Amino acid sequence: MPTAMRPDLDLAGGMFAALERQTRIGRGIVRDSYGAGENFAHGLAAETARGLGLEVETDSALNLYMTLPGRDRSLPRILVGSHMDSVPQGGNYDGAAGVVAGLSALAGLKRAGVAPRRDVTVMAIRAEEAAWFDSSYIGSHAAFGRLDPAAFAVRRSDSLRPLAEHMAESGADIAALRAGKAHLDPARIAAFIEPHIEQGPVLEQAGIPVGIVTGVRGCLRHADARCHGAYAHSGAAPREARRDAVAASVELIQRLNDMWLEREQAGADLVFTVGQFNTDPAEAAPSKVAGETRFVLDFRGLEESVMREASRRASALAAEIGRRHRVSFELGEPSYSYPAPMDPLLRRRLAGIAQDLAIPTQELPSGAGHDAAMFATFGVPTAMIFIRNAHGSHNPDEAMDIADFAKATELLMAFLADEKDDR
Amino acid sequence: MPTAMRPDLDLAGGMFAALERQTRIGRGIVRDSYGAGENFAHGLAAETARGLGLEVETDSALNLYMTLPGRDRSLPRILVGSHMDSVPQGGNYDGAAGVVAGLSALAGLKRAGVAPRRDVTVMAIRAEEAAWFDSSYIGSHAAFGRLDPAAFAVRRSDSLRPLAEHMAESGADIAALRAGKAHLDPARIAAFIEPHIEQGPVLEQAGIPVGIVTGVRGCLRHADARCHGAYAHSGAAPREARRDAVAASVELIQRLNDMWLEREQAGADLVFTVGQFNTDPAEAAPSKVAGETRFVLDFRGLEESVMREASRRASALAAEIGRRHRVSFELGEPSYSYPAPMDPLLRRRLAGIAQDLAIPTQELPSGAGHDAAMFATFGVPTAMIFIRNAHGSHNPDEAMDIADFAKATELLMAFLADEKDDR
Repeated sequence: MPTAMRPDLDLAGGMFAALERQTRIGRGIVRDSYGAGENFAHGLAAETARGLGLEVETDSALNLYMTLPGRDRSLPRILVGSHMDSVPQGGNYDGAAGVVAGLSALAGLKRAGVAPRRDVTVMAIRAEEAAWFDSSYIGSHAAFGRLDPAAFAVRRSDSLRPLAEHMAESGADIAALRAGKAHLDPARIAAFIEPHIEQGPVLEQAGIPVGIVTGVRGCLRHADARCHGAYAHSGAAPREARRDAVAASVELIQRLNDMWLEREQAGADLVFTVGQFNTDPAEAAPSKVAGETRFVLDFRGLEESVMREASRRASALAAEIGRRHRVSFELGEPSYSYPAPMDPLLRRRLAGIAQDLAIPTQELPSGAGHDAAMFATFGVPTAMIFIRNAHGSHNPDEAMDIADFAKATELLMAFLADEKDDR
Repeated sequence: MPTAMRPDLDLAGGMFAALERQTRIGRGIVRDSYGAGENFAHGLAAETARGLGLEVETDSALNLYMTLPGRDRSLPRILVGSHMDSVPQGGNYDGAAGVVAGLSALAGLKRAGVAPRRDVTVMAIRAEEAAWFDSSYIGSHAAFGRLDPAAFAVRRSDSLRPLAEHMAESGADIAALRAGKAHLDPARIAAFIEPHIEQGPVLEQAGIPVGIVTGVRGCLRHADARCHGAYAHSGAAPREARRDAVAASVELIQRLNDMWLEREQAGADLVFTVGQFNTDPAEAAPSKVAGETRFVLDFRGLEESVMREASRRASALAAEIGRRHRVSFELGEPSYSYPAPMDPLLRRRLAGIAQDLAIPTQELPSGAGHDAAMFATFGVPTAMIFIRNAHGSHNPDEAMDIADFAKATELLMAFLADEKDDR
């Protein structure tokens, strides 16, 4: 039975406060991938790790590795980590809490004089959020030498400058990345554990501080769907002459919302969202039938077949509704990220330790994508620990209670201290 | 029976070409109210009128009056006219065609040696389009001394400078306008005739070159309707926790489209349009449930009761849908313009003359608002002559055939020449 040990909450509080001070711009947090915000966060983590006497290194993509040596350094190590970038106008905890939890746990272990069996490395991952380079998990892909070279040319949504430029400016080794040089080898990683705030309200509504994730939902996204109709005078164009892009798009989205409800009631794991919907600011007017719309169709689920079927249904509906409204939909090729089941053994071990520590937990899927899904996809036994959080994430109002953070970090510490060589 | 007389089509062609040359910016026409585009158009009309030997004057709001003296100058005169401004990225004919038709008719009368019984004044009206000052019919209101002084402070949508500034720069007499000085007296106007391109496809689809308008639809518009929900992570927020502004707004608009269909099938004159619909560009993201939308609800019809009922229905639906989606709708106070029936005697006379001239015509409502509606509201016997036009208006693709323009102008000329003293 593990001993309850105290994570270093002063260290955690100090890091959260520094991040808050330095990266809140207006109402929200801005930690731009390979930009000032993310660079600050990584610098803060490295400085904290050096203060703890950890071994600190970076890879070609500037992912940061902070290692507490284990008793047997020849064994595959354990990685704990998450990303430190945020969406534009995001919150302070999404991503960063995982790195802070890792450092706070290692500080607690050192303070308690506990040397883990294996090396434990806290990894601060780069560029997880797709908001900046329209591409997720850049850092974790790069760590495994799996970054698609096409990504280097993708322009950041705010600066409109390519990833390669932003990376090089921050100090990354582009040549090594282009050569596909890997820093991590799945065979040399015993486990990857990603602590992360829950981005939905499930734990909060259930009154449970800590979640153990069953799997990470994949995402099939038509990021630039469009409807092409024709502008016309709103009062003078009768229904039968209209090619109204708003009316057609609204009907499509309404029908997809209906479909989502049906699939959900039939027990499928599916989430559907239209987070952006716009008429053309240059051409649309109150007195014009809209000739064009742009919107995003975002499908998420734990099973590829369910998401693919939803996307096919969207195309079929778009064709049918398009004919009826005399408009044409162009949903575009969807981007796709695989769903990733979490490791059953790790889930069981975490649940067992939590029970021993009397920390209430609940199993739940992760609706959002995470670097953990990449580690799982690349063959690393992977788990995620969710921390209860109010108001969701990707917004300035996310609110994590430090007491819940402490419970999750306690669980993580006990796991690291208790670690058995079952790999 | 009237004699067929030829309008001066060279004059018309020359004016359209000059307008096109000077006010096409990019793909569309830009004749900004009290700005360079409209000022150019008024200058062109005045110059053309002086070339024809007409009496030229302006009022305090810079509406332009170009008069062919009648045989009995003591009689109430006939006004023919329309506006010369356009929406941003509009077409060349909306508005301007009415002024050009008037001048082309007077030129034809002079050439044919026909002196009309009464003074005939072609009026080029200012600032009809609401796109610039979020307020329609500024010029025609001002001509009757009825411009609401609050309008002076309204800022133009592009320059963000107030109407009073734009007016003063163009040479208007703000003090006189503030004092409510009227240039026109309804009692001294025998009739107002507004020729205008049809802004819908009715004449084109019917294969008829000229329309006689039954009435101008009013417009009840919620110009800044909003839905307030809450931002959340798109993958992680389950349905029951969402406060999704897009899902709720889409359902409201879909239900209002259904209502429109029902009312139309029941024989009511109603048109419903959502021409603008946007998530917040600063906060919305592909991976977020949308916390806010803004959209326009535009209801038009020939009967006030039908529009009011539609607006009430929108409020009731918004309340019901808002409760279900845990969002709040704020439709806002609607703007309202009265529907205006056209004068039955004038309609009959125009139809009779057209029949004599073998010009095919059809009666139809005007879906768009027009200065004619203001003249009718202020007690002037008013009629509108529609000219067939492809691709609608308020867009760069409007397409009027000069042969159709010639037929409408022939009808107008015959009306002016034939004018009987039945007022």
